[in-house]
Amino acid sequence: MTENPELTIRPATEADLPAIVAMLADDPLGATRESPEDLTPYVAALKRLADDPHQHVVVAVRGERVVGTLQLTIVPGLSRKGATRSIVEGVRVHADERGSGLGTRFIEWAVERSRQENCRLVQLTSDVTRTDAHRFYERLGFTASHVGFKLQL
Amino acid sequence: MTENPELTIRPATEADLPAIVAMLADDPLGATRESPEDLTPYVAALKRLADDPHQHVVVAVRGERVVGTLQLTIVPGLSRKGATRSIVEGVRVHADERGSGLGTRFIEWAVERSRQENCRLVQLTSDVTRTDAHRFYERLGFTASHVGFKLQL
Repeated sequence: MTENPELTIRPATEADLPAIVAMLADDPLGATRESPEDLTPYVAALKRLADDPHQHVVVAVRGERVVGTLQLTIVPGLSRKGATRSIVEGVRVHADERGSGLGTRFIEWAVERSRQENCRLVQLTSDVTRTDAHRFYERLGFTASHVGFKLQL
Repeated sequence: MTENPELTIRPATEADLPAIVAMLADDPLGATRESPEDLTPYVAALKRLADDPHQHVVVAVRGERVVGTLQLTIVPGLSRKGATRSIVEGVRVHADERGSGLGTRFIEWAVERSRQENCRLVQLTSDVTRTDAHRFYERLGFTASHVGFKLQL
């Protein structure tokens, strides 16, 4: 891996969407949920995200190639003495990059950015079936202290 | 309960903070985390929340009395074809109101508001020790499909 171009993490742009959506779809859970053949809804969503100062959608790029994506949301709140928290969503790493340390780099980036925004807590949920991801987050210091509930509308 | 004044749900104001913080602190987990004797950090946090159009901090009021609070955050996203989701945080119901149906009213309010904002998913996390809350959310149609991880900064 030493000859690989360096990895950089930067805000996502519309030009990154084909690569981002391909990664969202290349996943046991994402395969049935995404539409890589029609990017229209993703273009609209990226505009909404870009207009929101509390949203940070980033990509990891190696050389010219988009190899990962992540969304960090900054959430002010009243509880815990008015603590702001951050929420990590939509973490995807390209299949070719698994084991390259990109997952760790990504979460470290999210934690550092959360500190810069004065967050007191970083939180995320992971599908109960993703047991490898659970071990990964625990190695990085996260505690599996909560049950995550979802209701589809 | 039929002689009780009607329950209304409305946006929280600074005047509601003493009642809100008292409820946040009147909780096995909240007791050590909150500072009801010093509202300064909560006043600052409520200003941050009021400036963010994606944040809805509400109170439930019966007669003149604040008896519940809840925070709904609207989160645009790329995954699930650019789906917007909502996150429910900081649900608290005054001890006197337990069993009054307020919890259900609150979640129904959050679901309805999420529909109005075109959310495709409502999500929340609940501490693993709050088993009564877990049954409550499942009765309301939520699925405990995820593990919730937190990292304190």
